[in-house]
Amino acid sequence: MASEFGKKLKISVFGESHGAAVGAYISGLPAGEHVDEAELYRFMERRAPGKNKLSTARTEADRPVFLSGVKDGIIEGTPICAVIYNSDQHSSDYSKLSDLPRPGHADLTAWLKWHGSADMRGGGHFSGRLTAPLCIAGGIAKQILARKGIFVGAHLASVGTASDKPFPLCPSPKLFEELAQKSFPVIDDSAGEEMQKQILAAREARDSVGGVIECAAVGLPAGLGEPMFDGVENRLAAAIFGIPGVKGLEFGSGFAGSERRGSENNDPITLSGDRFVTETNNAGGILGGITNGMPLTLRVAMKPTPSIAKEQNTVSLSRREPAKLEITGRHDPCIAHRAVPVVEAVTAAVILDMILECEY
Amino acid sequence: MASEFGKKLKISVFGESHGAAVGAYISGLPAGEHVDEAELYRFMERRAPGKNKLSTARTEADRPVFLSGVKDGIIEGTPICAVIYNSDQHSSDYSKLSDLPRPGHADLTAWLKWHGSADMRGGGHFSGRLTAPLCIAGGIAKQILARKGIFVGAHLASVGTASDKPFPLCPSPKLFEELAQKSFPVIDDSAGEEMQKQILAAREARDSVGGVIECAAVGLPAGLGEPMFDGVENRLAAAIFGIPGVKGLEFGSGFAGSERRGSENNDPITLSGDRFVTETNNAGGILGGITNGMPLTLRVAMKPTPSIAKEQNTVSLSRREPAKLEITGRHDPCIAHRAVPVVEAVTAAVILDMILECEY
Amino acid sequence: MASEFGKKLKISVFGESHGAAVGAYISGLPAGEHVDEAELYRFMERRAPGKNKLSTARTEADRPVFLSGVKDGIIEGTPICAVIYNSDQHSSDYSKLSDLPRPGHADLTAWLKWHGSADMRGGGHFSGRLTAPLCIAGGIAKQILARKGIFVGAHLASVGTASDKPFPLCPSPKLFEELAQKSFPVIDDSAGEEMQKQILAAREARDSVGGVIECAAVGLPAGLGEPMFDGVENRLAAAIFGIPGVKGLEFGSGFAGSERRGSENNDPITLSGDRFVTETNNAGGILGGITNGMPLTLRVAMKPTPSIAKEQNTVSLSRREPAKLEITGRHDPCIAHRAVPVVEAVTAAVILDMILECEY
Amino acid sequence: MASEFGKKLKISVFGESHGAAVGAYISGLPAGEHVDEAELYRFMERRAPGKNKLSTARTEADRPVFLSGVKDGIIEGTPICAVIYNSDQHSSDYSKLSDLPRPGHADLTAWLKWHGSADMRGGGHFSGRLTAPLCIAGGIAKQILARKGIFVGAHLASVGTASDKPFPLCPSPKLFEELAQKSFPVIDDSAGEEMQKQILAAREARDSVGGVIECAAVGLPAGLGEPMFDGVENRLAAAIFGIPGVKGLEFGSGFAGSERRGSENNDPITLSGDRFVTETNNAGGILGGITNGMPLTLRVAMKPTPSIAKEQNTVSLSRREPAKLEITGRHDPCIAHRAVPVVEAVTAAVILDMILECEY
Repeated sequence: MASEFGKKLKISVFGESHGAAVGAYISGLPAGEHVDEAELYRFMERRAPGKNKLSTARTEADRPVFLSGVKDGIIEGTPICAVIYNSDQHSSDYSKLSDLPRPGHADLTAWLKWHGSADMRGGGHFSGRLTAPLCIAGGIAKQILARKGIFVGAHLASVGTASDKPFPLCPSPKLFEELAQKSFPVIDDSAGEEMQKQILAAREARDSVGGVIECAAVGLPAGLGEPMFDGVENRLAAAIFGIPGVKGLEFGSGFAGSERRGSENNDPITLSGDRFVTETNNAGGILGGITNGMPLTLRVAMKPTPSIAKEQNTVSLSRREPAKLEITGRHDPCIAHRAVPVVEAVTAAVILDMILECEY
Repeated sequence: MASEFGKKLKISVFGESHGAAVGAYISGLPAGEHVDEAELYRFMERRAPGKNKLSTARTEADRPVFLSGVKDGIIEGTPICAVIYNSDQHSSDYSKLSDLPRPGHADLTAWLKWHGSADMRGGGHFSGRLTAPLCIAGGIAKQILARKGIFVGAHLASVGTASDKPFPLCPSPKLFEELAQKSFPVIDDSAGEEMQKQILAAREARDSVGGVIECAAVGLPAGLGEPMFDGVENRLAAAIFGIPGVKGLEFGSGFAGSERRGSENNDPITLSGDRFVTETNNAGGILGGITNGMPLTLRVAMKPTPSIAKEQNTVSLSRREPAKLEITGRHDPCIAHRAVPVVEAVTAAVILDMILECEY
Repeated sequence: MASEFGKKLKISVFGESHGAAVGAYISGLPAGEHVDEAELYRFMERRAPGKNKLSTARTEADRPVFLSGVKDGIIEGTPICAVIYNSDQHSSDYSKLSDLPRPGHADLTAWLKWHGSADMRGGGHFSGRLTAPLCIAGGIAKQILARKGIFVGAHLASVGTASDKPFPLCPSPKLFEELAQKSFPVIDDSAGEEMQKQILAAREARDSVGGVIECAAVGLPAGLGEPMFDGVENRLAAAIFGIPGVKGLEFGSGFAGSERRGSENNDPITLSGDRFVTETNNAGGILGGITNGMPLTLRVAMKPTPSIAKEQNTVSLSRREPAKLEITGRHDPCIAHRAVPVVEAVTAAVILDMILECEY
Repeated sequence: MASEFGKKLKISVFGESHGAAVGAYISGLPAGEHVDEAELYRFMERRAPGKNKLSTARTEADRPVFLSGVKDGIIEGTPICAVIYNSDQHSSDYSKLSDLPRPGHADLTAWLKWHGSADMRGGGHFSGRLTAPLCIAGGIAKQILARKGIFVGAHLASVGTASDKPFPLCPSPKLFEELAQKSFPVIDDSAGEEMQKQILAAREARDSVGGVIECAAVGLPAGLGEPMFDGVENRLAAAIFGIPGVKGLEFGSGFAGSERRGSENNDPITLSGDRFVTETNNAGGILGGITNGMPLTLRVAMKPTPSIAKEQNTVSLSRREPAKLEITGRHDPCIAHRAVPVVEAVTAAVILDMILECEY
């Protein structure tokens, strides 16, 4: 269904960038769990814009209002509707977009699909702003998972051609926490500086740049996931490709693994105490769609922000003729670093969904 | 749900490698459509094993029997159950596997999940043999799509470190047909020879090798796909990660695009006659999850076959101690080339599903 | 999923009677359709309380606010979030209920399910107030169906032991419109007076009374519905049993038909011009789950309002001992007449959902 | 989806009356559970035809063959495909039906829907024979539920105008077992004789007669079911209306309750030891869609068998003109008594599905 994922824990997102609000309908969160709102805001702050010159200057008061399902910080068991009212809208920045679809955006596809009915100002329902409600749901999911000893963390693996170190074989919750507190979420800060240079260089060139996010989850039970089309990979993939700008996804050794031999890529099985573990983790913690108890690892490719100041070729929808477009207004030269908590949020939501299917 | 994908066109796979049969329950195919069985067998033959020394010697009479839903070659409208009875089973080859899980296989995860209840001989329900019923459903989907002017084709983009040419901007149905008739499905046959060398080298080293498959669909209408989590990418991703051995997926420029600048990766919009088209196709035909009318392109990373003859470290499940494993029996040193029609099948099934949701 | 129905048109309800708001997340309504808000309010007014002494005195400003998905009265294609903010709450009326579950209510089952986490004041998420968002969605569905020549109407078939006339073989849209404009929606007003007498008698006895609603839809195409478990009856049943207070449902001759012989209950087939029709309509327009083009007819049994002023036996949850309960506050002595538009709303939503699955 | 129900335990039925086989695809049954095949056959025998002159003389060897998912009587965890091959087909009996749709049957609606593609001999996919695979799935569900202390039973509540005694407030598993062993499943055998007289009288009049089935489940935990549209009633209703011939369904006091006052219909709450119970069970064990721990009770209205020998008015599809039809061949003058185990099967499957969603 449009704008919705999950089975036992279902998250349905709504809103337009320049409409009255964005928000999420969330059902299936376990009754009685506490929502630590301060922690939730800190988590949401990580994706918020306007923090530095790497991001758009637009500021948002992204405080969610719970219209239902949460009372006095406790999850009731009934469906949750969480809303973030829109306040800071500069629609005039986008006024020319309605007739000139931005290359790399959903402007044209939404117009072709809905014949112009959708309010596409600021990207409309396809705006990165829709990731804020994902962070509400995912931020709560992260809190509940942590109480079960399951931790989800992510870092910016690369920006353009600059790369961070990969996660170690078994990343610790402490590492995740350190990354969460950094303003630029990388393991190796010197690599982070190079990435920031590439972002600023793109900005100066009135351009943008893409990146890759690596995400991991530790503490997962073995045996999670159903065979073939309802495995952990399938469910995560269906959700992660819903994050605006994602164009690639790999688990474990992924594309690199396809260049290897089996003897290099197979993870030898051994024992750690009484537990079966693997010596390497090229499987990313999943075999046959089912967790093996090793860390779940995945990498997400984010395309460069399509909104760039440079002049681009497009068309006039009304006149059906070629046109030139220069996008003004505030735009991120890179969204990959702001997408780090979003990938965590979606990963956490999918994992909690699958945990709740097995355990009540 | 386990082993099942699709909404309007739903495909549910069943069977164990060494059980009585494998097959598929298929509902939602449009009544009155003709199933060209000869063409279906030719399609299924492309994934069949035993054709040459690149594949396992196991031969299968993979002729599907339609127990319901198809009468005199016509789709009735009622659910289809298509069965391939298993005949050629050498269970003794696998007898030692029950206690020694094969690294890189689902042996261990299935055992952890189901506590040993599943018949995992030959990979059980996780066997590559389960892709045969996918080819029944996908092969029929391809026939129906072709009648609507939509064509799906694929080729082996790389094996190990050897690469084929990529698809051109707009691959033709004729190119797809030529690839389908090749015993080794590559665009550039000299690249194909290098790939085959790598496969044979792996085989001689009692090892295996992975590969990448590129798939494309042409003739798609614009406007297909729902926003965020029910887009074309989400639906394809959920299904394609169900093909045994898939560990990565990218659309359009994918991971390579994340290294680029926006000005390089955005596809300029222009007109071709009265139609809006793009000059490049880094989006892989999809923006905001919705088709733009350009070819859909995706690339799938297949890991190296985990079953290798080389000795590997594993554990004894019964004694909970380290063990050595040498896998005998017949195994493909590479499955990527046999997976080419499977990727086509799954892609076609997802596309037809989404077409049927819009059109009746 | 909790509080949600529909496939192509999906309606997810949220809110608690004494929380911040009630509302609905609605996805799948066709882009470009007009929402006639004045007509929508008139429709919603039909279920509104406080109109006369047959209903509770609670007044609500049930004007829905569209947070997303509707702009300038046009459906955008993106998900709709429609909210009705709660204003008129007298929580003190219900304060004693938290420890003394009301017989016939979900108080006890919600407490057993969620261990007291849910805000059950005023019935919480199980309150009849949750039918207001159903009327938003269903009211829009009725408008869209009318543009396709499909009309849904209902009347109060009985209250207690007093019965209205049944619908004629082919009820007209004009009859539906007349019923919609009556303050007490019956075909035979003298029967309506007897019904109202029974309601008032129940009220004077500090008691309540149940009723039956008959609903019909005309203009349906033949061939709607999938076999066995996804037919029109299955989909309607799953949704209609979600209306608070519904305990029975029958299609066509229903329970009465089970007392008859086949020769009496079969509907002879004949021709009306070029169309196949039936001479009677004991099938209620559905055979094998599929519409035959005759009017769809169904009857819904509503139990008597469980909130009554009479003293009742219950238990104290905290002390686990028997207790007496006298419910004060404002309560409807009958909800069946207010439920008439709700049954229409749900029926219209299900029909539109099934229409949209076939037609785009 | 067509011919499919359930979420965690999903049952998808296939087959045509005169095709190669009927069967079911079943996923989600818990790995490791034993299938007692002898008990399963005894259960299936209860719906089998040909036992006496109350039923059709057609004999079937309804032994299911498990093509997958069950090995050595143990559920593996992977999807099950269970098949009953068709052997005893007298297609000539039905040859004239293709052009003359039988009143009260799906012949016409299937033809209108699928434009004649479906093999409708013997009712095709709408035949009562499709209830045999339901009994496979439901029979296994009953075995698993019994191991959890949950028992499902049913009896014939009425045939035509003759009625059995209703179930007592808390029916015992022993009563269910006694009913299961009777050739005519009623509580009061003298009432059963009157029912059989009505069936034979209908048969002699070349006619048929309908009936009502009462079903109950005991041992259910409290708190099962999600609010509004995913409650126990919604899920049961969606499934039970899939049984061919069902036209009405009520829970607890149902339609009779709608004639009562609240003080009569509310079930007073009290304590039985430490458990909350109700003194009466007009709610049928469900409030707000959620179980309260009392027996679940429901009543199902089955229409009279539409296939009757008496001459009926119909049309010729090919000539589009009125026609007369006399149905020859073997037909049940009543299907309600054979449907008793089918109602049990579907009820058990839905309950197990909901149990499995909460417990793993």
